[in-house]
Amino acid sequence: MKAIADVSIIPLGVGLSLSKYVAACEKVFTEHGFEPKLHANGTNIEGDWERVMEALKACHERLHEMGVPRIATNLRLGTRVDREPSMDAKLRSVKEKLEQ
Amino acid sequence: MKAIADVSIIPLGVGLSLSKYVAACEKVFTEHGFEPKLHANGTNIEGDWERVMEALKACHERLHEMGVPRIATNLRLGTRVDREPSMDAKLRSVKEKLEQ
Amino acid sequence: MKAIADVSIIPLGVGLSLSKYVAACEKVFTEHGFEPKLHANGTNIEGDWERVMEALKACHERLHEMGVPRIATNLRLGTRVDREPSMDAKLRSVKEKLEQ
Amino acid sequence: MKAIADVSIIPLGVGLSLSKYVAACEKVFTEHGFEPKLHANGTNIEGDWERVMEALKACHERLHEMGVPRIATNLRLGTRVDREPSMDAKLRSVKEKLEQ
Repeated sequence: MKAIADVSIIPLGVGLSLSKYVAACEKVFTEHGFEPKLHANGTNIEGDWERVMEALKACHERLHEMGVPRIATNLRLGTRVDREPSMDAKLRSVKEKLEQ
Repeated sequence: MKAIADVSIIPLGVGLSLSKYVAACEKVFTEHGFEPKLHANGTNIEGDWERVMEALKACHERLHEMGVPRIATNLRLGTRVDREPSMDAKLRSVKEKLEQ
Repeated sequence: MKAIADVSIIPLGVGLSLSKYVAACEKVFTEHGFEPKLHANGTNIEGDWERVMEALKACHERLHEMGVPRIATNLRLGTRVDREPSMDAKLRSVKEKLEQ
Repeated sequence: MKAIADVSIIPLGVGLSLSKYVAACEKVFTEHGFEPKLHANGTNIEGDWERVMEALKACHERLHEMGVPRIATNLRLGTRVDREPSMDAKLRSVKEKLEQ
């Protein structure tokens, strides 16, 4: 089962500058074979459900290792069985409608 | 690593009446050994990260088996390493503050 | 237009103990005439869209006044026009399915 | 008070093809003077809290006018008072860390 995920990880207890933790997660996703698409409020990845969840867990573990005591993540998670889901297809479809 | 999760599962392509799908997920969580706490906009469970994620995956699979072609889930996910996280402790702590 | 909202407010830059801020928001919601339903990962309120949004803004303002420099809120927001939405009806409907 | 918002609007009761509704919201945001940044799982906008919320309400109203009976939105909402928040600054800061 393929999943499309939008991951917003908020580290707590480490002050206000969160970018190094977001960057650390990006690297974890890349190490796990994903091509993360960073946006202003999260990161999009797509792939097999289990691999997505392993990578997300590895993010939490990495951040805790970096000294983050508490993490609040918001995850948007999509699956579908009528056809293969794809982030590119989702974006393309909206853009086509915008051009009409 | 223990996780506290707030799961909001939205089945797409099956009309407007979603309660039977929410109920199906509640049953999946119970079958997986959780005590789900249903609220008006989701369900809270807590437990080992892997078990939480297995149960969530089983929800998606169950709903797809029931004929739901597409699912959009919103997940709030908390982990902490400074002390054992607990939904009861979170609620109790806010309620104490409200009584002051 | 009536809205059902699930509000999860995460104060940043004030350490790990967030319950007093959650409690402060509960009070703001009550002051604004809502009956907030606290759960382990957020608070549910329902009412006129504008009133819900005024109250949410007042929460952010109150927390910033209390010294919170940065806030990350996750909001689940439902509207419907086929019939009057209701948190009680949502919960009742799932519970009926669970009893079948 | 400036807000940064990540809006994920899910129309219910209109089948599986949601892109025309996402495109309609993009147009609403543009009409309201925003420069929406579409990504695979939502749209980012930034601006004055009240204007952001007016535009979001206008999206829900537009979609209901288009025949969508029910809408479930997930909103990530950030405010901060220590300095002016900016989507560009957030992205730039993470990218700098990734290059180090």
